[in-house]
Amino acid sequence: MVNEQSNRQIILDHRPSGYPTSETFKMITTDIPPLRDGQVLIRTVWLSVDPYMRGRISDARSYTPPHPVGVTMPGGTVGKIVVSQNDSYPVGSFVSAPAGWQDYYISNGNNLRVLDPKLAPISTALGILGMPGLTAYHGLYEIGKPQVGETLVVSGASGAVGAVVGQLGKLSGCKVIGIAGSREKVNYLSDELGFDAVINYKTDSVADHLKDACPDGVDIYFDNVGGPITDAVMENLTYRARIIICGQISQYNLEEPDLGPRNLRQILTNQATIEGFIVGRFSDRADAARSRLTQLLLDGKLQYMEDIVEGLENAPDAFMGLFQGKNFGKMLVQVSSEKD
Amino acid sequence: MVNEQSNRQIILDHRPSGYPTSETFKMITTDIPPLRDGQVLIRTVWLSVDPYMRGRISDARSYTPPHPVGVTMPGGTVGKIVVSQNDSYPVGSFVSAPAGWQDYYISNGNNLRVLDPKLAPISTALGILGMPGLTAYHGLYEIGKPQVGETLVVSGASGAVGAVVGQLGKLSGCKVIGIAGSREKVNYLSDELGFDAVINYKTDSVADHLKDACPDGVDIYFDNVGGPITDAVMENLTYRARIIICGQISQYNLEEPDLGPRNLRQILTNQATIEGFIVGRFSDRADAARSRLTQLLLDGKLQYMEDIVEGLENAPDAFMGLFQGKNFGKMLVQVSSEKD
Repeated sequence: MVNEQSNRQIILDHRPSGYPTSETFKMITTDIPPLRDGQVLIRTVWLSVDPYMRGRISDARSYTPPHPVGVTMPGGTVGKIVVSQNDSYPVGSFVSAPAGWQDYYISNGNNLRVLDPKLAPISTALGILGMPGLTAYHGLYEIGKPQVGETLVVSGASGAVGAVVGQLGKLSGCKVIGIAGSREKVNYLSDELGFDAVINYKTDSVADHLKDACPDGVDIYFDNVGGPITDAVMENLTYRARIIICGQISQYNLEEPDLGPRNLRQILTNQATIEGFIVGRFSDRADAARSRLTQLLLDGKLQYMEDIVEGLENAPDAFMGLFQGKNFGKMLVQVSSEKD
Repeated sequence: MVNEQSNRQIILDHRPSGYPTSETFKMITTDIPPLRDGQVLIRTVWLSVDPYMRGRISDARSYTPPHPVGVTMPGGTVGKIVVSQNDSYPVGSFVSAPAGWQDYYISNGNNLRVLDPKLAPISTALGILGMPGLTAYHGLYEIGKPQVGETLVVSGASGAVGAVVGQLGKLSGCKVIGIAGSREKVNYLSDELGFDAVINYKTDSVADHLKDACPDGVDIYFDNVGGPITDAVMENLTYRARIIICGQISQYNLEEPDLGPRNLRQILTNQATIEGFIVGRFSDRADAARSRLTQLLLDGKLQYMEDIVEGLENAPDAFMGLFQGKNFGKMLVQVSSEKD
């Protein structure tokens, strides 16, 4: 029955210090074992590469143990059931699965979610209707608590999370200022997504432009990047500002800890709050959040952009490009065709 | 009727850059105007000098406008009513008053609170039953939310706020670690106040000793000082740790912003929270807090230490000493006798 007998896998080969390189990863080929009762074989269609994976392959203390060297890289995927010994997952159905960087994945069904391709493109389960969308939703609403008329600043604004944060902020009646790294991204956020202002941190002074764009200060800062951009925002906080630490991508590849201005005094005098979060903390509200995001998407109130690389073998490049801001929208690797 | 006709006042003479010096202050003598109906004349008995005053005399943006040059230094006091045109405040009664650094103060009664000298020494209205005590209480309980068995670290631990934080933490069932700056302070906190461990930051490595003292990490950090001590604590946070920013005394006199390691990544991976606060935000619960602190004091469950300097003319030295950690306990200036 199984004509899929060989599985390409990209493993963590060397733990990087600093930026990951082609040495970090290695592709191997393994045999696919026969399925047992209750199992399904899933062919990966879409693979998500995300900045958080840099933390997983580091040996620094973090919220999960370091990913072991020699093991297939972890990651969210959308795949198609190609062989099934489980009636809940018929052949041909699409599922989201934590399959990692490989062509095929075997599951007993416990960690799968069936997708409805008629509702939305199945790739959105890795973007606006998946982990990044939920991250934006929970972080903004549960920590940021946006109020009509408040000023919301988003760093990494054109990324998979940032673009959703900004759009949800507009829907909540906030003035939304994005910070992004190219003219193309700036134009997209301003012209397509309706951000009130967007600052190009590669060409402009974030400090100067923030003062202009936020004359009343920053009530909510959704931080995906950290570093000097965050320093600049810290100088513009309002009374009881909320700072949501979602990512610190500028810091993930540093070999030595970065120095920056101490800014807890701004937190003190403004009685502001900083809170870090990982989306899994809100998993009990994930279904509600996904329903809301799906409805907003169907109503045309949310847009998304995908940046697609073809071929599993290009996953390392796609991943490494995240840290140069090369992606424009949600970075996805198309591992196989949805139609096959 | 008034035999008090002349009032010594210490004014802000030069706005300091860096540490305040004797040039910062000047004593002047003014006449006391006659009282109008409803007014009282208060003779200052106790004057409080506090680190927050450094912020007030800076022209940096803060939670209050800068204190103007040429005007009497602000500050909390306890005084005695010596002339009264207000039936609510009979001559001879003691009140707490925002009189500032001067011998006499005229009030219409709106900003006074009558003290009961039989309940507790009136000087406590500037310490454990006053602003510092309320700061400790509200910061620890409303932001720190201590739970039995958690580890609480307090910097500036022997100060007017820190010593109350640590004692309340013990009463809440926490393991309490203090950080202080002399052997005398360390011994007091360990031997008299029952802290579980105390680190002398002037002689010992805070980083090394914290790891030993907090093998399960730091659940709550009550920060009065900022700077390298805070950096060390940041390396030991637990999942969902709470960091309470009450003061940043190490930073108040810097002429250039200080650089330190960026540590928002620790906030992210631990899903921790940092919150700054000023005690006035909790003024609606101040009476309840003061009642509780008073009861604990009467029950012998709280102790306090006062560091007393005699004479209004020595208020500048007392104030400047705060930034060298010269005080041991709540720093007070005795301006006149309670008995006179």
